[in-house]
Amino acid sequence: MNVGIVGASGYSGEVLVKLLLGHPQVKLTAVTSRQHADKPVAQVIPALRGTAAEQLRFTNSDPASTAARADVDLWFLALPHGAAADFAQALVPAGRKVVDLSADFRIADLATYEKYYGTHHAPGLLPSARFVLPELTDPKWKSEIKLAAAPGCYPTSTIVPLAPLLKAGIVAKDHIVVNSFSGVSGAGKKAEEQYLYAERAESAKAYGLTKHRHLAEIEEQLSGFAGAKIVLQFNPHLAPMRRGIITTTTVPAAPGATIESLYAAWRAAYAGKPFISILASGETPDSAYVTGTNRLDLSAVHDPRTGNFILTSAVDNLVKGASGQAVQIMNLWLGLPETAGLV
Amino acid sequence: MNVGIVGASGYSGEVLVKLLLGHPQVKLTAVTSRQHADKPVAQVIPALRGTAAEQLRFTNSDPASTAARADVDLWFLALPHGAAADFAQALVPAGRKVVDLSADFRIADLATYEKYYGTHHAPGLLPSARFVLPELTDPKWKSEIKLAAAPGCYPTSTIVPLAPLLKAGIVAKDHIVVNSFSGVSGAGKKAEEQYLYAERAESAKAYGLTKHRHLAEIEEQLSGFAGAKIVLQFNPHLAPMRRGIITTTTVPAAPGATIESLYAAWRAAYAGKPFISILASGETPDSAYVTGTNRLDLSAVHDPRTGNFILTSAVDNLVKGASGQAVQIMNLWLGLPETAGLV
Amino acid sequence: MNVGIVGASGYSGEVLVKLLLGHPQVKLTAVTSRQHADKPVAQVIPALRGTAAEQLRFTNSDPASTAARADVDLWFLALPHGAAADFAQALVPAGRKVVDLSADFRIADLATYEKYYGTHHAPGLLPSARFVLPELTDPKWKSEIKLAAAPGCYPTSTIVPLAPLLKAGIVAKDHIVVNSFSGVSGAGKKAEEQYLYAERAESAKAYGLTKHRHLAEIEEQLSGFAGAKIVLQFNPHLAPMRRGIITTTTVPAAPGATIESLYAAWRAAYAGKPFISILASGETPDSAYVTGTNRLDLSAVHDPRTGNFILTSAVDNLVKGASGQAVQIMNLWLGLPETAGLV
Amino acid sequence: MNVGIVGASGYSGEVLVKLLLGHPQVKLTAVTSRQHADKPVAQVIPALRGTAAEQLRFTNSDPASTAARADVDLWFLALPHGAAADFAQALVPAGRKVVDLSADFRIADLATYEKYYGTHHAPGLLPSARFVLPELTDPKWKSEIKLAAAPGCYPTSTIVPLAPLLKAGIVAKDHIVVNSFSGVSGAGKKAEEQYLYAERAESAKAYGLTKHRHLAEIEEQLSGFAGAKIVLQFNPHLAPMRRGIITTTTVPAAPGATIESLYAAWRAAYAGKPFISILASGETPDSAYVTGTNRLDLSAVHDPRTGNFILTSAVDNLVKGASGQAVQIMNLWLGLPETAGLV
Repeated sequence: MNVGIVGASGYSGEVLVKLLLGHPQVKLTAVTSRQHADKPVAQVIPALRGTAAEQLRFTNSDPASTAARADVDLWFLALPHGAAADFAQALVPAGRKVVDLSADFRIADLATYEKYYGTHHAPGLLPSARFVLPELTDPKWKSEIKLAAAPGCYPTSTIVPLAPLLKAGIVAKDHIVVNSFSGVSGAGKKAEEQYLYAERAESAKAYGLTKHRHLAEIEEQLSGFAGAKIVLQFNPHLAPMRRGIITTTTVPAAPGATIESLYAAWRAAYAGKPFISILASGETPDSAYVTGTNRLDLSAVHDPRTGNFILTSAVDNLVKGASGQAVQIMNLWLGLPETAGLV
Repeated sequence: MNVGIVGASGYSGEVLVKLLLGHPQVKLTAVTSRQHADKPVAQVIPALRGTAAEQLRFTNSDPASTAARADVDLWFLALPHGAAADFAQALVPAGRKVVDLSADFRIADLATYEKYYGTHHAPGLLPSARFVLPELTDPKWKSEIKLAAAPGCYPTSTIVPLAPLLKAGIVAKDHIVVNSFSGVSGAGKKAEEQYLYAERAESAKAYGLTKHRHLAEIEEQLSGFAGAKIVLQFNPHLAPMRRGIITTTTVPAAPGATIESLYAAWRAAYAGKPFISILASGETPDSAYVTGTNRLDLSAVHDPRTGNFILTSAVDNLVKGASGQAVQIMNLWLGLPETAGLV
Repeated sequence: MNVGIVGASGYSGEVLVKLLLGHPQVKLTAVTSRQHADKPVAQVIPALRGTAAEQLRFTNSDPASTAARADVDLWFLALPHGAAADFAQALVPAGRKVVDLSADFRIADLATYEKYYGTHHAPGLLPSARFVLPELTDPKWKSEIKLAAAPGCYPTSTIVPLAPLLKAGIVAKDHIVVNSFSGVSGAGKKAEEQYLYAERAESAKAYGLTKHRHLAEIEEQLSGFAGAKIVLQFNPHLAPMRRGIITTTTVPAAPGATIESLYAAWRAAYAGKPFISILASGETPDSAYVTGTNRLDLSAVHDPRTGNFILTSAVDNLVKGASGQAVQIMNLWLGLPETAGLV
Repeated sequence: MNVGIVGASGYSGEVLVKLLLGHPQVKLTAVTSRQHADKPVAQVIPALRGTAAEQLRFTNSDPASTAARADVDLWFLALPHGAAADFAQALVPAGRKVVDLSADFRIADLATYEKYYGTHHAPGLLPSARFVLPELTDPKWKSEIKLAAAPGCYPTSTIVPLAPLLKAGIVAKDHIVVNSFSGVSGAGKKAEEQYLYAERAESAKAYGLTKHRHLAEIEEQLSGFAGAKIVLQFNPHLAPMRRGIITTTTVPAAPGATIESLYAAWRAAYAGKPFISILASGETPDSAYVTGTNRLDLSAVHDPRTGNFILTSAVDNLVKGASGQAVQIMNLWLGLPETAGLV
């Protein structure tokens, strides 16, 4: 199978190029970027020197000509929202499978999307698109969709611990408080003063309180699993590290729920899932242990004093939080081993 | 006035030495440390080369001989809990003022202390001791106590935002969720594998969930301000930085409370306090801006979707979270300008 | 005395503002910045909240109106080269003392300056200006100059160890190899991709080899001390830290020189200098111990196998490497205690 | 082929386990560690959760029983010097191939070894052992040796740029000055105060000047390539990052040598070598681009002012500087593709 990436610069783009070049069963035949058109990939991404990136060049792209290419079976879109939909608009009708890393198709409800992101560029594609979190999304997506929307980083770290517990009635549906701490690469490769090394080293702060865009997909997904409208508190923070997200979620236990029933719900949901590690209660996930991998570690404790469960998770924001999960989606969609090309 | 420090090695001890050596109105005449007895201070704390630390030597110490010294009017105790009480036991009856940086006298209720810390070494001193957070504690402490207990780092970052809001009925008394994120110096100068550079760089993780010792003083203090028993969720995390704590607290707004009434309660509590900066709602505190100072920045937003307030604060765990606050206490206790020797 | 800063944003500008606001004997009455004109200083430099920076506002500036101000006795120029000379051109004739943090007046030889920096904007001022490294420059500068040029950061870290040894014939005049390793703040507060946190964390690299601009002043100064033309190898490197410079210089011992005679030459040069600490041979300077101070630590070893001396030094690039040294110069120039306002 | 690791904890051990578990053509059947005997590998190395490390347990080991195992064809020794020789002493006579990551067999001259490391535990093995740097060591080693000594980290970063240039007479044989900056993992996983996060973050310093043990193998190897005794200056430094080494070597150009002839010598030596990337003169290696890979990037410039060449290189100290190179050696020794299991 031949695959391609539209918009392969930026941090998640670099990770995606690396994963696909090392994938044993697909061939990365196209990487497009307006900014770097004609440059060798290994020149733009020096960390990929000495790899197959030496033989690959970025090409210019626009939706129409990209769709016209017959040499790519599945396209990854690593573009900003809006631009992604523009490309999807051309690629999907042309019969190409599309895995989108942007937010454009993660949210089923158009009004919700537009409230957070502005006018949707391709609402007509929404019915044939779907948010796909492989460990949770009903597997029928593989045969039903034409475009898979890879989840956002914070949403992955938040939804994985919570979804099975909402579904199984282990936790309350309200008073959910999610606190996340993310490495700076999550902000992208933007030359802005606030992301300079001298500004971010030895610094931590909250941002985007009450209104981070990821709320849209987090709440839509969790409402689906809960069978009821979920509104929660999501507090993101910038951490002085390059990669990794830890998320600590505090939520009241449902009546009768115990730490044992919580872990049983997790095992029922995630047993046999190659990228989810359920840690013993009392061992908290460390972002360093998952960084560079497609894994998500999670754990939980119960506090009898407050009646809350505290759920903790760790992911690499660029891998399981973005590009690794996109590759995982591709593997499942193409009928390849789920773990192909991933650790 | 002459002051001394018992147990001046360790990270907060180093900060305390530096602050007192630079203090315009007191003279640091004694620094004791069993580990470093007889060594010049500037040799043990190389960051203090070229300062008055060159003329100071560590001396050995035990409670009795320390109490017998007539050349020190006020002692700072920078010892582990237990050991601090041992020294206090000798110093207080000898008429010396004592500012204790340990937890030994922060908690008024003996049973609570012993539940978290084990057997108290000097319970008889508890009635003449008190937790002193200068901006909040009733000023009568200055004339009533013989030993001031400087608050813990996490407690400072948690209590300052919450206390006036509980007292003024701006926030609910339950469903309080506190998430803190601290630099590694908070763990102390212990040669343990988990605190090695290669373990902590590019790493973040939760720890001490449901049972961190600081819960004891946080809840006792806040219960006092609330006029009701407060039980809350306190989730600490290790951050890949040396210094600084950010704390994000989510709590439901009390009926009728608004962001304006919240800010009014803060202004009423903190107007004119030199070390508290109330930031505009929407501007979140950054630990880098307070590190190296005795300041605490705070801010809040209201989320109409959840009905919660989210309170954010930032402090330097070693300064306003420990040694700076101890000096601030001394200043007030000795009738000196509150900001003397502090920034 | 009233002092002012032209161009006070940027990292060394922030340090300069902080130092002058805390200086016991001068009053910072003016801070100019086109970019931040009219904004309160504490808003632009959040780390200065709660200080006298709250009462100070940036004002717009141009050379003529700045020179016309009668309320400032001494101006610091924290501008890029070229722009600094433009202001100096107006301020010096107006009788204001000027301490310039740029390179514009560090190099006496105009041709050398122009080779590295381009056309000089105010060559007519060169005769009344001088590179001033307080511990080394002949003290007559205080009465002879109208503009003091504060040395660059790498030059400070390089010249201090070498100058007395060249002068005393302790080291050879050739085969001098200087390797420096600097925190990222040395690059300035420029929103460029290469200085983003995600680019610089966990990264080290050489840059500016053979042609770093600081070569000009390093070689001119050392040639003066050596009494012969010095040409050396200067290899700068970017380090994954915010502040600090370490410099390791390898140079053959002159015939007959020993480590004892080297240390004797250092002591002769630096005994009593409050900001220079000569460490024992075998103890190497650590940038963490001088960061935040105006100190420079240095040390040396002799290698009998190669016949080389290896000189090591550490400074804070923003303090003794820039703004602290500028304040130190001001102190001496105005007849104040050399250490006033500095640690 | 079955392989095993003796002493697989520690930072290079963890990397070695990961590389071998992912190797397509060998099977890691044994990992021994006294400290962690009986524990699952994924428990001791949490970063390897979810991998084949879940099915592997550490076993206890001593030389005799390790040698007696018939289920391992090649052993890696990831032990301290001395202990490594003890195991080699048993394994080599038993006919097992041994790749040693310690210094025990890197130095051919026994007197030199003992000067730096103390009494050799197995000098009788020296004739059948050899320092193997795959890109440089005469390939006949594959058929001549019984034990391959994987080079040290600093030596790899130093020898690769210099060896071909000494051999081809491009650089002088004296006045060689090598400065290296290494991430903290190079110090090992030792719970010592100096390697604590709070000590090493925002800190850089030289150490081991004139006498670092790696001098022994660096000089012996380079003397071999130069055909003359090489004595050089090697200045290591600790950098505030976890992984990576950059090395900057200053050396006079030999008469008639040019940057073109230098690059020609490098190309002659390294063309087609999969893990060496020769960067254009003027582009300096960045440790971030090689970290996590088995690659070494190098570059050089010529300074007409001094007549020196400045050679720059970057490696990951744990990969090409240790475990990756060990796997590369194994690949060649077993006749597998050189790049198998490596990036």
